[in-house]
Amino acid sequence: MPDENGLQRAYKQSRYQIAGHGRRTVQVLKDALADVSDESESDMYGKGKVIEAFEEKLARYLGKDTAVFFPSGTMAQQIALRIWCDETGVHRVAYHPLCHLEIHEEDGLKELHQIRPILLADANRLIELDDVVGMKDDVSCVLLELPQREIGGQLPEFATLEAISQYCRSHNIRLHLDGARLFEVLPYYNKTAAEVCRLFDSVYVSFYKGIGGVAGAILAGDSAFTSQARVWKRRHGGDLISLYPYILTANYYFDLRVSRMGHYYHKAKELSEMFNGCKRVSTLPHIPVSNMFHVHVDAPAEAVEQVLIRLCNETGVGFTGNLRATEEDKCSFEVSVGDAYDKIPPNTLAQAFTLLNSELAKGNESHA
Amino acid sequence: MPDENGLQRAYKQSRYQIAGHGRRTVQVLKDALADVSDESESDMYGKGKVIEAFEEKLARYLGKDTAVFFPSGTMAQQIALRIWCDETGVHRVAYHPLCHLEIHEEDGLKELHQIRPILLADANRLIELDDVVGMKDDVSCVLLELPQREIGGQLPEFATLEAISQYCRSHNIRLHLDGARLFEVLPYYNKTAAEVCRLFDSVYVSFYKGIGGVAGAILAGDSAFTSQARVWKRRHGGDLISLYPYILTANYYFDLRVSRMGHYYHKAKELSEMFNGCKRVSTLPHIPVSNMFHVHVDAPAEAVEQVLIRLCNETGVGFTGNLRATEEDKCSFEVSVGDAYDKIPPNTLAQAFTLLNSELAKGNESHA
Repeated sequence: MPDENGLQRAYKQSRYQIAGHGRRTVQVLKDALADVSDESESDMYGKGKVIEAFEEKLARYLGKDTAVFFPSGTMAQQIALRIWCDETGVHRVAYHPLCHLEIHEEDGLKELHQIRPILLADANRLIELDDVVGMKDDVSCVLLELPQREIGGQLPEFATLEAISQYCRSHNIRLHLDGARLFEVLPYYNKTAAEVCRLFDSVYVSFYKGIGGVAGAILAGDSAFTSQARVWKRRHGGDLISLYPYILTANYYFDLRVSRMGHYYHKAKELSEMFNGCKRVSTLPHIPVSNMFHVHVDAPAEAVEQVLIRLCNETGVGFTGNLRATEEDKCSFEVSVGDAYDKIPPNTLAQAFTLLNSELAKGNESHA
Repeated sequence: MPDENGLQRAYKQSRYQIAGHGRRTVQVLKDALADVSDESESDMYGKGKVIEAFEEKLARYLGKDTAVFFPSGTMAQQIALRIWCDETGVHRVAYHPLCHLEIHEEDGLKELHQIRPILLADANRLIELDDVVGMKDDVSCVLLELPQREIGGQLPEFATLEAISQYCRSHNIRLHLDGARLFEVLPYYNKTAAEVCRLFDSVYVSFYKGIGGVAGAILAGDSAFTSQARVWKRRHGGDLISLYPYILTANYYFDLRVSRMGHYYHKAKELSEMFNGCKRVSTLPHIPVSNMFHVHVDAPAEAVEQVLIRLCNETGVGFTGNLRATEEDKCSFEVSVGDAYDKIPPNTLAQAFTLLNSELAKGNESHA
């Protein structure tokens, strides 16, 4: 992560943001603690009311027998794959080339667990049934990420999920769900979490994306699976004496926001239309299927950065703090709609898009 | 960890406790946050003012170039040993038979890192220079725990540490400090943390023992070491988006209590005398060398449990919630003196010891 640049500074200081739930400050924690009794007891190494009650609540919500709270998804998912590999005796798993484990975890899966991944599909498209059927190596487990974050949060059709699940079950392959953004896709599928999760043997969900907590994750599955997960959690150094700061915030923001996912999804579609109405701008997916999408701009990152800083300064609207240069003088950024979007006055947002459109049009002429 | 038993319940409900800083409740977190601005920004994946400032502060305090904040000591220490093993190419380390890594971590070191430990000394005594010199296998690293918790918190003489350090340096063996209770031993050694730590290549300290925070650890060493530690922290799933709930509490209670360690040590010596004045009771060490010691009782755990419950009920003084049955109808428990001790009125404490003594004397007759 580079040091803070001009765009990050401008974004942080912007009055409004199109993405997220507001700034990640200590207030996020304090708000969640405000109604918690001072006398509430800490969890102790995975035991105690605060952790057990939340694990049971999420197990029920996800339709699984049991659940374990983890400090991070990185830890939870490596452990899930390790358990399935040990169970089947095959230390190979299959996942998308842009899977979190492949690109964001410093190869923990390989370095700590000696598990070799098979990359399914091309980086720029979703995994389909044919990719799973066509695997040349034996694998213990297939991991599916819903939505596929690094390609804008695309989703397979639910029927595809069902077909992959059925194939895996009939071929003794476990199916693991990277549900970092599972809550966010339920409105599109028009399914309950349990209806999605029953296609999978193990499920990870996160509490600081759409839910907006401080950190933390849940790993759910049957009790044979989660009892092994608890042992591995201890081995990884994740069985902290106290995880309650994360659990209390996860619980608070889960209750606050899990029912708002349909609203965020609706607003993401509205917002994507505004982007797609701008010159040289397109969103991926074109019509979002969750609260998230990527914005692709056909102009160099340096030029777009200046435009976005100007937008912050002149309209108070921050579009992103993280612009990613892509191939051939293009760039992109990610948008995940949350509570912050609703705080932008419609006129102000319209003004911001008018300015974005006219600035990018200028760029078009000077680059033509 | 078993479900709560009668003694645990009585201890939790006792008005006073001889050990610790008071109950581990949400108030511990709230007190630390009270003076923190709502606007303080979260750390983000190991970056940001809140984490960097604390890492720098502790690096200075420990006299090391750099430091990394970890969610747990389990994670920090496995990683330290892994780095030293990779550096020397020898995947063997040496430590005490009752080392935390050997008995409390579900063999994470072996299962995740394929590192084989050589056990130095007998379980019931400290590691001496001869044990290190006498190692038959090559090892990359020796780990010393100060104080040796599982044998009551005993400490080698400082000259022994110096000799072991010198031997390791001249034999290309790294020396790692398990300083879970390092702050607590500085008054006995009459040394600064930096004076102790310069004998070691890497150092781990904890913030929820003598310091009384919520959780969290620091791993310190030179910058080549800590930059590798950051990569492994990501691999282990410890590079959380936000660790600030632990950092803010660690910082608050460090400032509050690090200068009180001499007081706790003094009070531990006072308290151990009271225990040693009781029939069938002895402490290990006989004279404590830190704020901690173990109390050994020459009577069966079931009988002592009833006595300790009676003490809670009749005097309001809780001695322990965790009684450990040892060999031949004996039992023991651990005491770590903190802020709670000072809250017990001296008369009440004297009354509790009078009752303890008379009850254990009774037991003596009935068991004779």
